[in-house]
Amino acid sequence: MKPVRILTTGGTLDKVHDWRAETIAFAGAGKSQVPEILEQSRCYAHEVEQLFQIDSLDMNETYRKLICERILAAKEDAIVVTHGTSTMDETARYLDACDLGKTVVLTGAMRPHALFVSDASFNLGGAIIAAQTLPPGVYGVMNGCVFTASELKKNEKLGRFDV
Amino acid sequence: MKPVRILTTGGTLDKVHDWRAETIAFAGAGKSQVPEILEQSRCYAHEVEQLFQIDSLDMNETYRKLICERILAAKEDAIVVTHGTSTMDETARYLDACDLGKTVVLTGAMRPHALFVSDASFNLGGAIIAAQTLPPGVYGVMNGCVFTASELKKNEKLGRFDV
Amino acid sequence: MKPVRILTTGGTLDKVHDWRAETIAFAGAGKSQVPEILEQSRCYAHEVEQLFQIDSLDMNETYRKLICERILAAKEDAIVVTHGTSTMDETARYLDACDLGKTVVLTGAMRPHALFVSDASFNLGGAIIAAQTLPPGVYGVMNGCVFTASELKKNEKLGRFDV
Amino acid sequence: MKPVRILTTGGTLDKVHDWRAETIAFAGAGKSQVPEILEQSRCYAHEVEQLFQIDSLDMNETYRKLICERILAAKEDAIVVTHGTSTMDETARYLDACDLGKTVVLTGAMRPHALFVSDASFNLGGAIIAAQTLPPGVYGVMNGCVFTASELKKNEKLGRFDV
Repeated sequence: MKPVRILTTGGTLDKVHDWRAETIAFAGAGKSQVPEILEQSRCYAHEVEQLFQIDSLDMNETYRKLICERILAAKEDAIVVTHGTSTMDETARYLDACDLGKTVVLTGAMRPHALFVSDASFNLGGAIIAAQTLPPGVYGVMNGCVFTASELKKNEKLGRFDV
Repeated sequence: MKPVRILTTGGTLDKVHDWRAETIAFAGAGKSQVPEILEQSRCYAHEVEQLFQIDSLDMNETYRKLICERILAAKEDAIVVTHGTSTMDETARYLDACDLGKTVVLTGAMRPHALFVSDASFNLGGAIIAAQTLPPGVYGVMNGCVFTASELKKNEKLGRFDV
Repeated sequence: MKPVRILTTGGTLDKVHDWRAETIAFAGAGKSQVPEILEQSRCYAHEVEQLFQIDSLDMNETYRKLICERILAAKEDAIVVTHGTSTMDETARYLDACDLGKTVVLTGAMRPHALFVSDASFNLGGAIIAAQTLPPGVYGVMNGCVFTASELKKNEKLGRFDV
Repeated sequence: MKPVRILTTGGTLDKVHDWRAETIAFAGAGKSQVPEILEQSRCYAHEVEQLFQIDSLDMNETYRKLICERILAAKEDAIVVTHGTSTMDETARYLDACDLGKTVVLTGAMRPHALFVSDASFNLGGAIIAAQTLPPGVYGVMNGCVFTASELKKNEKLGRFDV
């Protein structure tokens, strides 16, 4: 078993229903949903590190640099980064250019885990396995498929990542 | 993208609440939950083939032989087999002895998908990725970990597969 | 058994997750969630009539007049109106002033039914019983309590209707 | 607002998935699901008293006598009893014969609350309102209908209470 470090950055996967604002948003306390997904899936072998909770539309170079740093600082060579889907491809290409020498897998969701009937568990489950089985490089895992950093591209119209 | 064939055989993953018998059981119509998990996860790249719906305690050589045959008959080299957890290890070793020359990944769940808050999506998502990324051989994917056929062993007391 | 007519007007109860807009909104097809709640609760004795699907913040006299008309046009004397919580009290007082001569019960939810773990079923279940058991008049049923039109007042801070 | 006392006795409503026995059963700790339903529905006005957790098939005179005693001991005149559906009618008639002088409403569910998409919230929400609005007597509230003790009769084939 290869230990995986899961870095959480927010995105739709992490949002909850905000009854005050009548929308979906990050939880007041800013807690990621990833530990709950792992608990629900009895997955205790890997470690979670919450970096921040932002919309992927707010992702910028400062945040990407921080992700980069935390990947390098990790004792693990297998890394999963949970990320919003809108700019996941840009972050993948940014990280790819950093030449990190580790297996880095980005993943996310179209429906928040906290709203049930979500794609979050499926995608995260796949990313955690990809991080253990793929050679060093930067990848995206969405909808049961593996994409290299250069292949990764959200189909905004259909809400999925096409092959 | 490597196309995966998902062979379903039943197990807890596939059960639903049976209000008449006040228990959990396979749906009257015998339909697997796997297509629903894929739909919910927007995973349209792979194919599902429902073999049968049995408790893994009822798994025997006749059923295992059939799984073996369907793996060999598949046009895909990447195969996922959904299976009850109790005898998943025995089936893995049986298939391993068959020398199939394909990547075969067994997976399942401790809580039925139809009861929500289940580990089914997470495990299936992982198995589908493992089938695409691992070299030929027989594996189990449970709880975010990859096991070879010989390593696979359910911890009956804790309800998970330990490393 | 007293037959109840359920008039749906939208509100949080009826919203779904809109993955395109990354928010909660009325379903594209504009279908109310109320029939699904009744189906899930095996409640087949009453009738649903979908009036419109609006935020209660958009509720105005034109809409209220229409609700009034549909109550009077109904063959039933027991009426439930599903409504957003923000202006439920205003609509209750408007309907009360109309002197309808029927038992009219307003209800709604703080979390959409489609997001699970919602208060929608509980509130609707209560309103349907209240419509059958209370004398003519206008009431609100929320959080397991019955309020007269004049008592009804949302506690915006706590997200509930206080006694 | 009329305060209601909710006496819980078990039944399907209270069961959870037991992954060890691969069935549905009462939780190891024996905790009722009713407080969770009330929390989820922001219903804080009423009190819960857990009597026991039994299948309604195991209901007998000893248990019924205890229910009777707790109803009489309650400071409230409005009582809800959560109960399995199979013998709910017998308990209703037993309690009716006790001439309690209070409004007693029995309710239950066909699908456990803990399995989601359940009728538990809807039925409990209705029973709590019925307890506040009906005159003294013994009733059942199921599927959006009110039944007197003598009318109450489960349709075992369809899994609901018919009018």
